[in-house]
Amino acid sequence: MAIEGSKEEAASGRIRLGMVGGGQGAFIGAVHRIASRIDDQYELVAGALSSEPARAKASAKDLGIADDRAYGSFAEMAKAEAARPDGIEAVAIVTPNHMHAPAAKAFLDAGIHVICDKPLTTTVAEAEELVALAKKSGKVFAVTHNYTGYPMIRQARAMVAAGELGTIRLVQAEYPQDWLTEKAEATGSKQAEWRTDPKRSGAGGCIGDIGTHAYNLACFVTGLELDELLAQLSTFVEGRLLDDDVEILLRWKGGARGMLWASQVAVGHENGLKLRVYGTKGGLEWTQADPNYLWFTKFGQPKQLLTRGGAGAWPEAARVTRVPSGHPEGYLEGFATIYAEAARAIRAAREGKAVDADVIYPSVEDGLIGMKFIDAAVKSSQAGNVWTKV
Amino acid sequence: MAIEGSKEEAASGRIRLGMVGGGQGAFIGAVHRIASRIDDQYELVAGALSSEPARAKASAKDLGIADDRAYGSFAEMAKAEAARPDGIEAVAIVTPNHMHAPAAKAFLDAGIHVICDKPLTTTVAEAEELVALAKKSGKVFAVTHNYTGYPMIRQARAMVAAGELGTIRLVQAEYPQDWLTEKAEATGSKQAEWRTDPKRSGAGGCIGDIGTHAYNLACFVTGLELDELLAQLSTFVEGRLLDDDVEILLRWKGGARGMLWASQVAVGHENGLKLRVYGTKGGLEWTQADPNYLWFTKFGQPKQLLTRGGAGAWPEAARVTRVPSGHPEGYLEGFATIYAEAARAIRAAREGKAVDADVIYPSVEDGLIGMKFIDAAVKSSQAGNVWTKV
Amino acid sequence: MAIEGSKEEAASGRIRLGMVGGGQGAFIGAVHRIASRIDDQYELVAGALSSEPARAKASAKDLGIADDRAYGSFAEMAKAEAARPDGIEAVAIVTPNHMHAPAAKAFLDAGIHVICDKPLTTTVAEAEELVALAKKSGKVFAVTHNYTGYPMIRQARAMVAAGELGTIRLVQAEYPQDWLTEKAEATGSKQAEWRTDPKRSGAGGCIGDIGTHAYNLACFVTGLELDELLAQLSTFVEGRLLDDDVEILLRWKGGARGMLWASQVAVGHENGLKLRVYGTKGGLEWTQADPNYLWFTKFGQPKQLLTRGGAGAWPEAARVTRVPSGHPEGYLEGFATIYAEAARAIRAAREGKAVDADVIYPSVEDGLIGMKFIDAAVKSSQAGNVWTKV
Amino acid sequence: MAIEGSKEEAASGRIRLGMVGGGQGAFIGAVHRIASRIDDQYELVAGALSSEPARAKASAKDLGIADDRAYGSFAEMAKAEAARPDGIEAVAIVTPNHMHAPAAKAFLDAGIHVICDKPLTTTVAEAEELVALAKKSGKVFAVTHNYTGYPMIRQARAMVAAGELGTIRLVQAEYPQDWLTEKAEATGSKQAEWRTDPKRSGAGGCIGDIGTHAYNLACFVTGLELDELLAQLSTFVEGRLLDDDVEILLRWKGGARGMLWASQVAVGHENGLKLRVYGTKGGLEWTQADPNYLWFTKFGQPKQLLTRGGAGAWPEAARVTRVPSGHPEGYLEGFATIYAEAARAIRAAREGKAVDADVIYPSVEDGLIGMKFIDAAVKSSQAGNVWTKV
Repeated sequence: MAIEGSKEEAASGRIRLGMVGGGQGAFIGAVHRIASRIDDQYELVAGALSSEPARAKASAKDLGIADDRAYGSFAEMAKAEAARPDGIEAVAIVTPNHMHAPAAKAFLDAGIHVICDKPLTTTVAEAEELVALAKKSGKVFAVTHNYTGYPMIRQARAMVAAGELGTIRLVQAEYPQDWLTEKAEATGSKQAEWRTDPKRSGAGGCIGDIGTHAYNLACFVTGLELDELLAQLSTFVEGRLLDDDVEILLRWKGGARGMLWASQVAVGHENGLKLRVYGTKGGLEWTQADPNYLWFTKFGQPKQLLTRGGAGAWPEAARVTRVPSGHPEGYLEGFATIYAEAARAIRAAREGKAVDADVIYPSVEDGLIGMKFIDAAVKSSQAGNVWTKV
Repeated sequence: MAIEGSKEEAASGRIRLGMVGGGQGAFIGAVHRIASRIDDQYELVAGALSSEPARAKASAKDLGIADDRAYGSFAEMAKAEAARPDGIEAVAIVTPNHMHAPAAKAFLDAGIHVICDKPLTTTVAEAEELVALAKKSGKVFAVTHNYTGYPMIRQARAMVAAGELGTIRLVQAEYPQDWLTEKAEATGSKQAEWRTDPKRSGAGGCIGDIGTHAYNLACFVTGLELDELLAQLSTFVEGRLLDDDVEILLRWKGGARGMLWASQVAVGHENGLKLRVYGTKGGLEWTQADPNYLWFTKFGQPKQLLTRGGAGAWPEAARVTRVPSGHPEGYLEGFATIYAEAARAIRAAREGKAVDADVIYPSVEDGLIGMKFIDAAVKSSQAGNVWTKV
Repeated sequence: MAIEGSKEEAASGRIRLGMVGGGQGAFIGAVHRIASRIDDQYELVAGALSSEPARAKASAKDLGIADDRAYGSFAEMAKAEAARPDGIEAVAIVTPNHMHAPAAKAFLDAGIHVICDKPLTTTVAEAEELVALAKKSGKVFAVTHNYTGYPMIRQARAMVAAGELGTIRLVQAEYPQDWLTEKAEATGSKQAEWRTDPKRSGAGGCIGDIGTHAYNLACFVTGLELDELLAQLSTFVEGRLLDDDVEILLRWKGGARGMLWASQVAVGHENGLKLRVYGTKGGLEWTQADPNYLWFTKFGQPKQLLTRGGAGAWPEAARVTRVPSGHPEGYLEGFATIYAEAARAIRAAREGKAVDADVIYPSVEDGLIGMKFIDAAVKSSQAGNVWTKV
Repeated sequence: MAIEGSKEEAASGRIRLGMVGGGQGAFIGAVHRIASRIDDQYELVAGALSSEPARAKASAKDLGIADDRAYGSFAEMAKAEAARPDGIEAVAIVTPNHMHAPAAKAFLDAGIHVICDKPLTTTVAEAEELVALAKKSGKVFAVTHNYTGYPMIRQARAMVAAGELGTIRLVQAEYPQDWLTEKAEATGSKQAEWRTDPKRSGAGGCIGDIGTHAYNLACFVTGLELDELLAQLSTFVEGRLLDDDVEILLRWKGGARGMLWASQVAVGHENGLKLRVYGTKGGLEWTQADPNYLWFTKFGQPKQLLTRGGAGAWPEAARVTRVPSGHPEGYLEGFATIYAEAARAIRAAREGKAVDADVIYPSVEDGLIGMKFIDAAVKSSQAGNVWTKV
């Protein structure tokens, strides 16, 4: 339990952070900001918080950003900040999906580290371009597949890697929600509008917004690579432009199989992300709404309820734990861990050192993997639900 | 809460019951016997309890069956009992699957009501023959899809029928177990042996043993008919002759979709049958291991935990409830309800009356529907996971 | 999993059972009858089912009891049955509390085994008299503290006895209900009427009806004897004649402490019996509404969820288990186990043999212990909440 | 969901915060720091982080506090900071209990707002002195009874106040832990050492450390005032100097009753704080380990599971909620809400305005109420478990 910065980190000061998107009325911007503050590794000093200049200015004022660092566009910000001696070292991109790629490119070009929301882009081609660009630039590029920051997810991954489950046979992932049960995009929900708009979200609706989270989590915990998938995408709400329900059969390299279900019309679910993994020796189950628990069963033995920070916690979980067992940590803490891990990588870059081996954050390559998954799912479904390589 | 027999039923005496299969070492036979006793509607008076004559005799002795009614074969029993003035009125068939059809035919031919375990037969053709024969005979033919006897499942069905969920969009059914994680059929488990043997089980392993239960439950609760399915059957344990894991995409008539997962290798699950149904107005969730609870959410309202016998119980649940809310009922009580409902039908037949409208039990037609599901799933999987009509 | 009778038991026939109370409109009578049938050890052949002769006759007819064995009073029944060569061997007494003692005496005097509902009597003096009488008669006398029949309670007891929890320090027992939140005895509830009537219930209301169950369970599982208690009995509903809420501090011989709470006005609880036991090495928790689970924590190790019939089940649980793990057993099965255990004792008596060592049922002595608890609690409360020896 | 600062707050800048205690090796200091950062209302600029000067300096360096504001004692800090034009506006006191009063006095005297950990002091007299001093000074004095910051606790309080439960009859509070099951204070646990040391903790061990939290929560939610209590304090671990288990009967003004149990030796519990409240019309239940849920039952209606941010959330909960329903918030967020509320009061003081009516934080008066509770419990137990006025 040592998340607060070390002496060395404190001495070298907080990382100067800028933000693109996340102005008044947005949701995920505030989450990124809180996450960036929890472990005291960042200071938000600049922003292009809205594509509407007036709103951008007003939002910056709300956040205590100096007037001369409240920009009207990300391009302007990238240029101006790169030119300042005290310019931002990293940028958080929290816009709708279609803006991720152009913004990320601008900041990479300006030599600024990137923390970008998911899905990485709206097309595979853009994602591949970002991967290449990030590689060339040598900059840190983190994608906020934030669920990988939960301590018990770190533990699950470590347990699988250590062979506690034996050879993995089955991966069952699901992410049901119900907030799009009715046509919210027609009744003024800003969140619903852009998330159901192909121009801003890309070709996937539910699959891109939450299916990709479930898939990322499955990959992260199992360490498996997907071989092919067979998807059925549905749009249950009349007139909706993108899928609002996704059912996928999975075939992983090495022989494991599984299913993935994501839905935005499953009444009774808020953010019901759940992962279940079964191997030859054991099985585990984790639910995002109750993230401090990990169920683990060794075949032929009683079921165990492992708790964050409790007797069965592994070092991989303890490393990203802030408060003792029995005091719940939540979504923001998991999100903060992505920021804290990225901070470690950014500080290493500052000092020209290698990143510590235990630092884990979803990378631009993980973002590309997510885009290939969305792309394959859309193609499989359009082709009549046939097996499609990812 | 009025499950015990009425005055009229007591006056006309218990139904004389015979049993085929269920001798020493069997599991489901004892379940049927307890179920038949709970509501005091039956008296077990004859049996062909094993295909081995000596074991058949010994088993009958254990159960207090008179020597002259302990038969060596079902054929002998059907003939002899039909000839007795006090012969059995109904027979419970609790053998491995391949014996269901010949035994059922023999008793229908002898004018005896049939209560048969599931799956109904090993082939669709046999099942169709039984349907025709049952119809011709006019006899009661119940199939023990026992989960339909749980009070909260009765309530779920009634709620869907009453429109509480609106139009059904999604049906998610699953039945994970872990008892075949290792090759139990090679290490002396009698249950594992016949259930993984195509000769005795039919073409489906996991799909026939438990997938069909999940499917039956989904049909029962939603009242929907399946249009087509796309199945991936897997055999994870090397050398096993039948599938031990089943993943299916579902398309229901009328536009609903869904998934069905059944597994015998999902470590950590005992009998994890779960059903989730989502409609335009509401959603519900039920789990067999905790059968006295039904989760119900009306869209836009707080989630409710409905309890058997509690404040939110409907008459359809109360009708098959024996003890007050908070005192759990279990598997045997649900199973007993199938017997109690069949008893009502058998008594109506005795008296030449119509069966009361509220009497519900899975029929031979439901058994045929189950066989068509197994058949379609096996064919879909063998054809490379393609959509297959049921 | 071998609850059904053995060959020897079948050969010697079912135990002939009579019933006092439990006629039309009663609740617990039906529970006793189902419990007596589940394992096929009894046949109900006689009854004095109501104190109103006409109702007694009609109730007997409903249950298929022969006219000449439908009695108008327990006294008549004891006399007549004792005189018959095929007279009842055992009687189930399921009347309101005030009738337990006179009825039990009559049947013991007639040489008939007794299975009696709880609390044993309405006074300690009566209970002591029954203990003496039972001892003298040599007859089996079981008291239906039915919760001791649950398999995981058997396991909890065995685990404590085996030292898995170390030395017991704390016992927390509770039994909240809400059915008397309003004045149900004034609005026609027969159950509420007699349970809140000192003439029929004795000096304790909530304490006698459910507090005594919680106390019995605590004693059963821990094997501890209570030394003294300090009780606060409350009557929250105006005009109610007996307590409807009970709060007690406990001091056990040997140094353990604890609390007991029982309530009939705790809105949201149906039958919320819960037991938690903590020792120097481990702790356990069990809830009646979910009886197939037992939580167990060894100090310094992860929490385990033990399931009835599952990997962590002990022989003491398996011995009274009917169906496999994951298929829930409930209240009736636990109740049936009390009947099955009593049957073993009655059969041993039949044959003049000692009862097998593993047979466990709550005895008339346990009934007396319960009465002393009620008595002490009432006295402690009346004396101003002072420590009172039991 | 509007926790982040407003435009006005951003304009007026963060509140300058100092900290007493919380240096290397401490636990709660880091919690306070994270809590102070989450909503971006404070900047930590000074500290007297340890009673050992070298450690104090080193700890300050770790936290990025300037050298000249790293003090060797709280007295020095109070004096020096009061003299600076940019001196701290508020101080967080996170030392062991015995230092709370002297530190708080020093800062109040210096005209600095105080945020102090609980219990407020080690004696009632000290607490009364602080109340008087705080009143005289007009400074904000918050006590971190942090559980009152959980959104669903805010909702519970609002529901009780709105009459949703009717008249309160019963309050059941408990806070079991197991970390002192063995003699941790003898094996190097710094946390265990001071918490079991009367010199540093005061006269109460378990009662002061966690019993007071449970009591505070019960008062906060119900709005009731306690009249008298009857306590049994126990020390189960040999040689321990303070109580490690507390059992209390409660009598509230107005007639409600209840029990409070707190334990540090209840194996299997991490931080098992739970509150249950029952009234004439409804009941509710909340558990700290799963804080995003609130169970609510209206008498005669199905149980509801209210979720933070979900369909049944009230404005009082929404006001202190940061992320959407289904994304869990935890301990740190609840703690942060205390800081955010105190910030509102401090900003109001800055500007000479009245504090908004909806701002809620535990005050120095609440701290005094907690001390009186500890005092009465210790006295009741020492006097032989007798009713004692608080």
